[in-house]
Amino acid sequence: LSVKAYLGSQTSMSPMESQSEKAEAFRKMHKGEVLLLPNAWDVPSARIFEDSGFKAIATSSAGMMVSLGYPDGQRIPADEFLSVVRKVATVLHVPLSVDTVSGFGEEPDSVAKFIGKVIQAGAVGINIEDFDHESRTMRPLEKQLGRLKALVKLRDESDVRFVINARTDSFRFAPGDESDRFDEAVRRGRVYRDAGADCIYPMGLVGARHIESYVKSLESAVNVMVRKGLPPVGELKRLGVARLSFGPSASYAAFGLLKRASREVLESGTYTTLTEGAINFEELNSLAEERKGPP
Amino acid sequence: LSVKAYLGSQTSMSPMESQSEKAEAFRKMHKGEVLLLPNAWDVPSARIFEDSGFKAIATSSAGMMVSLGYPDGQRIPADEFLSVVRKVATVLHVPLSVDTVSGFGEEPDSVAKFIGKVIQAGAVGINIEDFDHESRTMRPLEKQLGRLKALVKLRDESDVRFVINARTDSFRFAPGDESDRFDEAVRRGRVYRDAGADCIYPMGLVGARHIESYVKSLESAVNVMVRKGLPPVGELKRLGVARLSFGPSASYAAFGLLKRASREVLESGTYTTLTEGAINFEELNSLAEERKGPP
Repeated sequence: LSVKAYLGSQTSMSPMESQSEKAEAFRKMHKGEVLLLPNAWDVPSARIFEDSGFKAIATSSAGMMVSLGYPDGQRIPADEFLSVVRKVATVLHVPLSVDTVSGFGEEPDSVAKFIGKVIQAGAVGINIEDFDHESRTMRPLEKQLGRLKALVKLRDESDVRFVINARTDSFRFAPGDESDRFDEAVRRGRVYRDAGADCIYPMGLVGARHIESYVKSLESAVNVMVRKGLPPVGELKRLGVARLSFGPSASYAAFGLLKRASREVLESGTYTTLTEGAINFEELNSLAEERKGPP
Repeated sequence: LSVKAYLGSQTSMSPMESQSEKAEAFRKMHKGEVLLLPNAWDVPSARIFEDSGFKAIATSSAGMMVSLGYPDGQRIPADEFLSVVRKVATVLHVPLSVDTVSGFGEEPDSVAKFIGKVIQAGAVGINIEDFDHESRTMRPLEKQLGRLKALVKLRDESDVRFVINARTDSFRFAPGDESDRFDEAVRRGRVYRDAGADCIYPMGLVGARHIESYVKSLESAVNVMVRKGLPPVGELKRLGVARLSFGPSASYAAFGLLKRASREVLESGTYTTLTEGAINFEELNSLAEERKGPP
């Protein structure tokens, strides 16, 4: 794997130095306070989050794919995916982490090649999954390990030391009962950590007791996702969580609002949901305007 | 202007017969009840509106441009614009009307050529403006009339008798005081109507008294837009309004929600705005899945 071949000599956004600084800054955010990471799906959602004061932004694969007209997964053409990553990275001042689903490839080499393009498009962090969306089955641990090792090598040979967030779907798709699945999530998390992943993301970790137990077993940065029942940020900090991401929850909420607004117009003939608490034309338009300087 | 050259022999969506039926159905919706027309900006927002029960869907130019990373206006490449129109038209069962800003051209021939492509992409209605976004000035009436006549000719020679919604920005950009501007909006509306426009869309018509007066002066289908202070649908019907569109209000509301959710997470460390009244993964994903039949 040649890093040069994957990363090229420059990115489409800021100079490489600035991107590697962003990567370092993003890496440091995994220590200390809980890193609050809102997942956007397009340019304006990313900008709204940055303007609101988040110190880094992620993408939601489900949100992004669906907004482009594809179901979640890897049915979207890779070039279309990369084109949106580039657009979002270009308008942001803060670090951007990209959910790459399974890396748009199966073999280590093809995954590393794709992730190289994601970094080239301006990202300084990536998520990579260990289950297959189409078949909804877990990849064998050895297989996923090979894929992760290729990404770790790419990262370590690169000027942009991007953050690798290794997701495991053991809680949902590993065999056995709840306890077996928890054990498998721990086992995989440790293997991914030892292989060099920077953060472990066990999908479906929600309850305080489970979170505490998982974080203690890992002794690594752990990512949890917003869901009903997730303890508030202060409690997550106490439990040792390094990173909280929104996942697709912001798009769930936005489309929930569109449903309520629709019902109100169709049933009551009024527009309160559309007009209360809304932004205005200038603010919407500013989300796509080039900015003069840092926020 | 050759219709064949503009429309080709088939569209990328349903067979031409079906599209012309949609156009007829959409045309009929401008008589009787107030046509409720929610403006979407991407595939899932369009699908949420259709699933909610609206009988036709429009696009919001501001919402669509900004979601693609461009400010409102015509700075977006025409092909990228058309590509999203095609995506949205393809997934909808109900008629789609597209806000084309100023038709991505200045001269009648180039505007007609572009609108032909919009119809070919699956739309059965269009909006066209009489002011120039970049300079924020009104086009001379004669100029806009020539542009509209080219679209009327295109429509009348086409199998798809698309609905022409002629917007005037006289209330905002015409010279003189409020009364002069109202008169200019009436004058232009009548000229556009007499040229064959199917519906007149005076931007900024909000108060009941103004609406009543405008509708009476026009004796034509009139489109109003959701804004704070707009009378409810029942009242609009009494005032003789034919069509109510959301304009960009749904995107204003959705981004307003993202701001509130951001503030809540950053200030309180909780997730109520993200998790209450939200849709779920299956529903989000279904918005991009091919459907089995009519809704």
